[in-house]
Order: sequence, then C-alpha cells, then structure tokens
Amino acid sequence: MNRPLIALLTDFGLRDSYAGVMKGVILSHCPQARLVDLCHEIPPQDLRAAALCLRQSAPYFPEGTLFVVVVDPGVGTRRRVLWAKNKRHSFLASDNGVLSWLEDRPRIYRAVENPSLRLKPTSRTFHGRDIFAPAAAALAAGASPAILGPAVSPRARLELPTPRKLPHGRLRGQILATDRFGNAVTSVPAAAAKGRRVFFRGQALGPVRGTYSAVRSGEALALVGSSGFLELSVREGSFAGQFSAAPGDYAELE
Amino acid sequence: MNRPLIALLTDFGLRDSYAGVMKGVILSHCPQARLVDLCHEIPPQDLRAAALCLRQSAPYFPEGTLFVVVVDPGVGTRRRVLWAKNKRHSFLASDNGVLSWLEDRPRIYRAVENPSLRLKPTSRTFHGRDIFAPAAAALAAGASPAILGPAVSPRARLELPTPRKLPHGRLRGQILATDRFGNAVTSVPAAAAKGRRVFFRGQALGPVRGTYSAVRSGEALALVGSSGFLELSVREGSFAGQFSAAPGDYAELE
Amino acid sequence: MNRPLIALLTDFGLRDSYAGVMKGVILSHCPQARLVDLCHEIPPQDLRAAALCLRQSAPYFPEGTLFVVVVDPGVGTRRRVLWAKNKRHSFLASDNGVLSWLEDRPRIYRAVENPSLRLKPTSRTFHGRDIFAPAAAALAAGASPAILGPAVSPRARLELPTPRKLPHGRLRGQILATDRFGNAVTSVPAAAAKGRRVFFRGQALGPVRGTYSAVRSGEALALVGSSGFLELSVREGSFAGQFSAAPGDYAELE
Repeated sequence: MNRPLIALLTDFGLRDSYAGVMKGVILSHCPQARLVDLCHEIPPQDLRAAALCLRQSAPYFPEGTLFVVVVDPGVGTRRRVLWAKNKRHSFLASDNGVLSWLEDRPRIYRAVENPSLRLKPTSRTFHGRDIFAPAAAALAAGASPAILGPAVSPRARLELPTPRKLPHGRLRGQILATDRFGNAVTSVPAAAAKGRRVFFRGQALGPVRGTYSAVRSGEALALVGSSGFLELSVREGSFAGQFSAAPGDYAELE
Repeated sequence: MNRPLIALLTDFGLRDSYAGVMKGVILSHCPQARLVDLCHEIPPQDLRAAALCLRQSAPYFPEGTLFVVVVDPGVGTRRRVLWAKNKRHSFLASDNGVLSWLEDRPRIYRAVENPSLRLKPTSRTFHGRDIFAPAAAALAAGASPAILGPAVSPRARLELPTPRKLPHGRLRGQILATDRFGNAVTSVPAAAAKGRRVFFRGQALGPVRGTYSAVRSGEALALVGSSGFLELSVREGSFAGQFSAAPGDYAELE
Repeated sequence: MNRPLIALLTDFGLRDSYAGVMKGVILSHCPQARLVDLCHEIPPQDLRAAALCLRQSAPYFPEGTLFVVVVDPGVGTRRRVLWAKNKRHSFLASDNGVLSWLEDRPRIYRAVENPSLRLKPTSRTFHGRDIFAPAAAALAAGASPAILGPAVSPRARLELPTPRKLPHGRLRGQILATDRFGNAVTSVPAAAAKGRRVFFRGQALGPVRGTYSAVRSGEALALVGSSGFLELSVREGSFAGQFSAAPGDYAELE
C-alpha cells in the first residue's frame, strides 16, 4: 500500500527551520506520511507567485496528493483555513484565493475549525506549525475531512490576469513571475501567443520561438515555456537581469 | 514498525552537496533511516543560531528522533563529538555547547570515539561525512550508544543570555537571531515581557501585542512569537531590514 | 527489500518548483522510489561545477543509486540524454561530458530515446520533468535499461584540468569551484601537493597544512580538503571573499 503523500508549498524559505518544524509535527502525528518539498521560496506573502506555482506544479503529482499551502499576508488575523478537493488532489490553504488559479478548480471545501486538531498553545504567528501541520497529519492518517469542520464556500478569489486586447489586434499581457534563470512567465496562454510577434518596452523579441536554440547565445527571445504560458528569456542568460524585468511589467504581441 | 527518524541541523548551506553527501553516507549504512532536513542554513559556525534553532524546533519532533547537529567553529581541531540524550530525543553534536539551550537539557552523554565507526580515510575538514553520519547510521540501525565510546560529561557550555534588570524596573534584552521575514527574536521570555512596553534604539514599539494585525501594514510592533520569546516585527515588512537590526542589538522594556 | 534510491543533481535552484515537480513526476510513476537531493544549486549551466560535485559525492552513495543529473547549457537543442553505468551506480545525464570526471568512469551507455517514456506534450525547455523524471521512474520501478534506447558511446567529454608543470619544479593549478564557506577547491590532487609550499597571486600561503587549526583565526592557508584536492581557505573566514578568488584563478606550488 502506498504511503500518503504530502507536498509542502510555503513562503518560509530555507534559512530558518520553519519548514523543518512543520515536518516534525506532521511526522509526530502521522509517521507513515511521505513529504515532498514543492517549494519553500515563494516570495514572502506573494499570493500570485504561490497560485502560479500551484497551477503549474499540481498536475504532475500523484493522485491523492495533499498540498499544504502556507502563504498568507493575513497570518494572525481571523482568516480561516480551508480544506479543498478537486478530482485528483486535496489542499489545505488559507481562504485568500491562492487556490483560484488551479486549472481544475476545487469544488468541495471545508473550514478547518476543529480545535482538537490544533497544537496547544496555538500561536498566532505560526499557523503552519500549529494548524496546517496537525490537520495535514490527521488527513494523511486517514481521518475523514468531515472532522475538520463544516462544508463552506470560499470567500476570497484571486483573478488570473488575462491578456488585454488592444487596437489593431494587438494584445498586452503582463509578467506574472520570474525564475532563477531569469525567465519571465507572462499571463499570455500558449494559444493566444501562437503566430504573433512579441515586444517588450518597444524592443522586438521576434516571433514566438520553439526553443532557445532559435537565437544566438545572449540574445532575447519569446517562447512558450513549460508553464503553458508565453515566457521571455535570454538564451544562456537572464531576461529578468538584462531587462530589469519584474512581475507586473507588460509584454505586447502583434 | 516505524523507521528511525534522523533530523539534520547544519551550517552547510544548500549551494554545495555537503548535506546531500551526509545523506548518502547515512543511507549506505542504514537504508531504512528516514531523513528530515531541520535546517542547513545556520550562518557558518554560528553556535547561538544553532542552539536557538534546536531549542525552538526539537519539541515538535517525534519521540525517538536523533538530531545530528553539525555546526562547529572548531572543526579539524581535537574537539570531540558527543552523543547526548534527554527524555524524548537523542543528539550527535560537537562538545561546543550547542545543546545547552535545550529546555530539556540532556543528562546522559557519551564521547563518540570508536574508530571503527568512522569513514576511512577520515578527513580533518568534513566530520559531518566521516564521523557524524556513520555514527548516526549505526544508532539508527539499532546499535547501542555504548559502542560509540565512554560515558562523559560535556566540557563546553553556552550561556543563554538572560534579560538584564535596569533601574526603575526596566529590562534590557538582546536580539538572538533574525529570520527570513526580518523578525528579530529577542532573549526576553514571554513571561518577562507580559504587560510591558517595548523600545528599540529609543523608538517606542508600543505594548506587547497579540498579533500582527494589531498595527497597520508597514508599522513596527513587538509580540510574543512562535519561539516563546519576545519578537520585534514589521507587519507585512521586515524589522531587520527597516531598522538594520542584527543579533546582539538591545531591546528595552519598561 | 530496499527501496530504489534516486539522487537528484540539478541547476534548478530551490526558489522555483522545478525540483519539486520532478519529484512529483517520479513518484507518480514509481511511488516506492526514495529521493535524495544531492544538490540543486549548481550555478546555471555550469558543467564543471556539476562534474566536480558528482565526482566528489557519488562514492558516498549506496550501491545501486541512480543519479539524475540535469545541468545542460544545451537544453532544447537536439542534444541526447544518456543512461550510463559504472560498477556501483547508474546515471541519467545529457551527453555533454558531465559524467567525465567520475573516478570510476562509466563504460556502458544507452541513448534515452524511447518516446513512450516521455511526458506528453514534451516541452522543449523542461527536459528534467518530461524526459529525465519518467525515465528515472521507469528504471526505479524495475524496467530494463534496454527499453530506454540503443547502446551508444558518449560524444562529449569534459577534460579535468590537470596542474601544469612550470620551470624549476613549480606547479600551477586552477580553482575549480568555491563553496559556501569560501573554500576554493583547486585542480591539484593531494599527491601532487604533498610537501609543497602554496602561493596565490604571489602571496605565500605556507606549506600544505593538515587542519585549519594550524593557523590563527582569520589567516589564509592551503590544505587537502575532503574533496581530495588542494583547497585554499581562511580559518573561520572566507578565502573566496577575502581574495576575490573565483573558478579559473591560478594557484602556484613550489
């Protein structure tokens, strides 16, 4: 029998022991759980980066995976924690819209309210340890989601920015995130980018390419990346670095 | 039956393969061991940061966890390695005081001296790989601690800084560590902070708060954090960044 | 029975979810696989850093470990992926020479070509997810390497820089990599360094030492490190930082 798989997505970073402590709590209550670090370096409290990461990553995880998403500008407020479920996966996340960008949007939700599933004393600053981790362990150990709390509907929703139509058939998207290599993921889906030419701050990046090798080393290009979105890159270099490009910046297509 | 759990706490960082190699050695000698990264980003040779991390984290790990602590300014000297045990956990660490801040101070110690438990050749610069990892694997595989070496008493001890009493009932603590979010953990325990007002470099941070949401976004505050100590923070911002605050800086309470 | 062990070595870094997604794919196809992060912070597309890391780390892993090495300046080109095998381990890596520095050079190779072992659609930018991970999972699940593709010989080879002999018996090596502590690993093997005196940019670092404690805190020294190569260090400090030393810089021995 397979062991229950829990994937962790947080903005805790790895320079502190926050992620490690969450694992200690989970394994204290469910020793057979299997833990995978999806990512802990979401920029602090950056809901859009977390939502994008989850959208791009979740489809590649086994059926039955529980994603524990601890990214929340509102930690310590009364913002509730939700359990959610779509066809293949389930999720624990604050009710802040971070699950909104999943392609298979969850339709079943519960509020995580059961006080007996919290560590005592329950801090107001480290809900990952005191609320998320014990709830995840209980679920991984086989508890029914019904013990978490009542069925609810989510309150918050995060809009996935869609490209804006400009005159003359032009299209304007924006950068959603940049990665370690300096690639900039935009809000333009593959289908909308097809056959167009791409511009960034007035500079032509050429047509949408199939691969980095379409340009010379050090040259900028636009291509449909592994994210399913149009990405701006520099072959063997950093687009974000070379163009000082950051989330929110616009890219135009014609 | 549960697999033996080993938690790793080092200053190796993650840009090199030091931590990965330790795992290779442990799994070579104890394939059933279960490994958890507590933290590898302790600042190089920072005993106080490691001692604080261990104090805050250990209580959240399952009974029987073996903590392998590789942080030592004296690597390559004749400083001995200790095995230690408290009620719920055991530890491997250099005899440099890094275990002194544990709330449940270990009372049973052994020197790790058995040459047959070292990798050969034994380097003088990577004891994590050549001494700690094989000893951890032997213990996880069921060896008696008695084979490590003789029972001893630790030589080194690290004092946990206690707040200093000032005239007029004022109290002075110091920053022990800062985290990724720019929160500054001070040496003032929750009980001593209760009901007081907090100052940093003469600037009033107000009374001790219950949660970040007690102030507006971008404002500084003092609250009792998940560490059990008074922490200085900026809501949705970085106290360490905004105040250039660092370990050793003083906070005053009145 | 032991679970199949897969060690991951990439330049993906940990700020994005690339490494996490590879794990999701592997566990989707081989739930019993055991995953170890060897290192994900190889500098982007730095083949020499990856080759050195693998050379130094592989011997410490259990027999039967499969190393998945995803570091390739040529991603998205037609560069093929290889499976390789030496006495104790097997490897998946691009045919770019990254396996050339292994002390036990692999002698058996196959091209990873079987289209049924790729994720569909297969991106041209994330081969770690779409080609390496499913191939690794298939092997870990017990598939014969023969199903990957035909037996081949590797095309690319990376030369391990050897020290150059200078007049008067002097020797010139170069820095291959620096680590988190600022230690600089050179290309001079232990045997060639024995009994010599070391110079860096004309500055004498003294004879090859046995341990850091041979010099005072803050002083530079040369010693044979855990890598088996001559390393340049500063006791309780950073050689790379203090001397602005970087890969490619020369060290001389007399």
